[in-house]
Amino acid sequence: MKTTPRTGGAHPVEPKADKASVRRHNLSLVLRTVHEAGETTRASVAARVGLTRAAVSSLVEQLLERGLLVESGKTFSGQAGRPGTVLKAADTGPAGLGVEINVDYVSVCVVDLAGTDRVRVTEPLDNRTAGAAEVLERAARVAARVLGSAAARDLHPAGVRLALPGLVSAGTVHQAPNLGWNRVEADRLFAAALGGLWPGRPGAPELPVASDNEANVAALAELWFGGLGEVRSFLHLTGEIGVGGAIVVNGQLLRGAHGFAGEIGHLAVDGNGPLCRCGSHGCLEQYAGQSALLRAAGLEDGAGATAGAAGVEELARRADAGEARAVAAVEEAGRRLGLALSGAVNLLDPEAVVLGGIYPRLMPRLGPAVDGELARRVVSGLWTPAAGRLRPASASADAARGAAAVVIREVLADPLAYTG
Amino acid sequence: MKTTPRTGGAHPVEPKADKASVRRHNLSLVLRTVHEAGETTRASVAARVGLTRAAVSSLVEQLLERGLLVESGKTFSGQAGRPGTVLKAADTGPAGLGVEINVDYVSVCVVDLAGTDRVRVTEPLDNRTAGAAEVLERAARVAARVLGSAAARDLHPAGVRLALPGLVSAGTVHQAPNLGWNRVEADRLFAAALGGLWPGRPGAPELPVASDNEANVAALAELWFGGLGEVRSFLHLTGEIGVGGAIVVNGQLLRGAHGFAGEIGHLAVDGNGPLCRCGSHGCLEQYAGQSALLRAAGLEDGAGATAGAAGVEELARRADAGEARAVAAVEEAGRRLGLALSGAVNLLDPEAVVLGGIYPRLMPRLGPAVDGELARRVVSGLWTPAAGRLRPASASADAARGAAAVVIREVLADPLAYTG
Repeated sequence: MKTTPRTGGAHPVEPKADKASVRRHNLSLVLRTVHEAGETTRASVAARVGLTRAAVSSLVEQLLERGLLVESGKTFSGQAGRPGTVLKAADTGPAGLGVEINVDYVSVCVVDLAGTDRVRVTEPLDNRTAGAAEVLERAARVAARVLGSAAARDLHPAGVRLALPGLVSAGTVHQAPNLGWNRVEADRLFAAALGGLWPGRPGAPELPVASDNEANVAALAELWFGGLGEVRSFLHLTGEIGVGGAIVVNGQLLRGAHGFAGEIGHLAVDGNGPLCRCGSHGCLEQYAGQSALLRAAGLEDGAGATAGAAGVEELARRADAGEARAVAAVEEAGRRLGLALSGAVNLLDPEAVVLGGIYPRLMPRLGPAVDGELARRVVSGLWTPAAGRLRPASASADAARGAAAVVIREVLADPLAYTG
Repeated sequence: MKTTPRTGGAHPVEPKADKASVRRHNLSLVLRTVHEAGETTRASVAARVGLTRAAVSSLVEQLLERGLLVESGKTFSGQAGRPGTVLKAADTGPAGLGVEINVDYVSVCVVDLAGTDRVRVTEPLDNRTAGAAEVLERAARVAARVLGSAAARDLHPAGVRLALPGLVSAGTVHQAPNLGWNRVEADRLFAAALGGLWPGRPGAPELPVASDNEANVAALAELWFGGLGEVRSFLHLTGEIGVGGAIVVNGQLLRGAHGFAGEIGHLAVDGNGPLCRCGSHGCLEQYAGQSALLRAAGLEDGAGATAGAAGVEELARRADAGEARAVAAVEEAGRRLGLALSGAVNLLDPEAVVLGGIYPRLMPRLGPAVDGELARRVVSGLWTPAAGRLRPASASADAARGAAAVVIREVLADPLAYTG
């Protein structure tokens, strides 16, 4: 809900764009069209964007020269007339670096201009046991290794996007309760740490660093790379130690007045429930977060307990096997999730709700519990389990990839600005 | 969250608009600019919209001829050069008719092109005791009287907008739990009833009728006529028998995939609470709706009870006087409201929350209870009572006026289409 200036009714007819900015706009248009098509031809691009074949050819030449597009054989399929040369987004050169710092792991990836996840390192790290500067330094070390692997593949990120489990605004983590962070200047600290570890290419500018909420970029990953089909408006939850959320409306993130929208993890499902790390009581993540789930299933309660990803896998295995305590824990979390989601669905009327993080692995027991509660409580009566509006997130769409893809989108939006 | 076609990156440079459509666009631009300014001059309009003085003068002439603008004296104030003739939106001719049908009243108004509420009739009617067709017929009778008064003032609505307390989509009330309506074709029934009662002007086309959710148009009224200042993103609640809600983001209603967004009245504040008319349990309106409030205060519990507007007035009087039961009822409703709102605020991060309907009258006791709960539960920590983000709705901004103003907006958007 970022406020834009009040434009009222007064929109003068736009001034004519000058020739250079039209060309810049059209270069982006052609590059984005190829990016979205995956593989295409000059003729198809021309038909798609409404420019002449000659204009498209000229734009394509410029993109080939700059190494943003590549040619790859001929196509004879489905097109009238002579065969066209296949165009693709380059798999070298411009890339995006995504760095997800979560409570118990760091995941870093490099995505190329086609959107493909090309290098990935995920390290389990208990980030609650260190200060923010140390955690950002750890993440920078992983990032430097990934940058090295990427450079060996001739991939050169245009920028870094951090994905953080907290309220992020203008480069600062305002609050990340599960990390214990308050007012941490994440962009600055990470850039300083990375600068000391990764020299960059000679003459290349320093990598710009920006931060976002991890649920936001996970939702964008789902939108861009997931299996949502025509769905463009959805609620996205990521179950981790905390429960993150993001709202996508017509293909755009709803960010809110301060950039803090989507915090479904702190919806109160019981006003008198247990104290949450955020200071409130009975928040959803006290019932449906990873720790709560493992605790309820007896998998994180002291000596010998199994925690983290292994704990979730163990929980899923037991639930799949029908073990009573595991089933009860997952189903109870599902009902609480459904209760909170029913409020969100009544409020937002999304096309779909996507569950990511640890939830996809638990869907056989979790899904029906969530769907049942939604069917009971969504006031329109339009929520039925059969409608398939509750979906697990795609395995290929996570926060790190979404963060890296945001950088790619910036290159696609203005290819001439890329100087990596 | 209405889905729009996936446009991807492919936006060809727009084709040149033809001359007639540019003129149509600019007529609207000038008319909207005068509408928003209230009173202005040709020179100010030209400066504001970026067209030449000559072009604006020609457009203004056409709007004067069609009776959409009027001239009114000279201004000498603040402008360099010779005095200008004052321009205003016409206070005769094009108008909008708004018809709010709520559970225990019908309110009908005519708004002129300046946005002023010019004719208003509100009738207490217990609309739960009659079928939908009969209720719509009642409302049409009130509307016909209002149309008569408007015609006597030379005001001729371009259309009718119904405001209904339920889920409305494409002219049909999908569900209005507090009216007991299901799948009622409100547009068609109201148009038929009005057609038999109001002949219209000879030769004029039949009045087009469209429906909307009452909370949606109340929120638009607040946006357009309320005291929100620069706030363009807010949550709007209307406390009536039910509790309606609407979400405005950057000056636009967030409508949802089916048009059903904003249903905060059915957010569960206690999953095991009392059965709601929607079929769910523990919905907000079971704690903070008008009936719940009056019942808790002992004002609607059998013989001798005071109901409706008089009951609310009595409750407010007793709460203001510090009578314990009334104070407790209002404060408890406020806490429940705050609990539900904290979820919505965590989810949407609006700039403000506006409380309308019966709530403004109860604000002295209600406001602090709501604010307190929000301050405790909004995860960003940015909700403080001192920030003034909780606001009573303006008395001049109600659903009927908002509905009528939606019709006016349509005239402003394309003044040449008005043939009333």
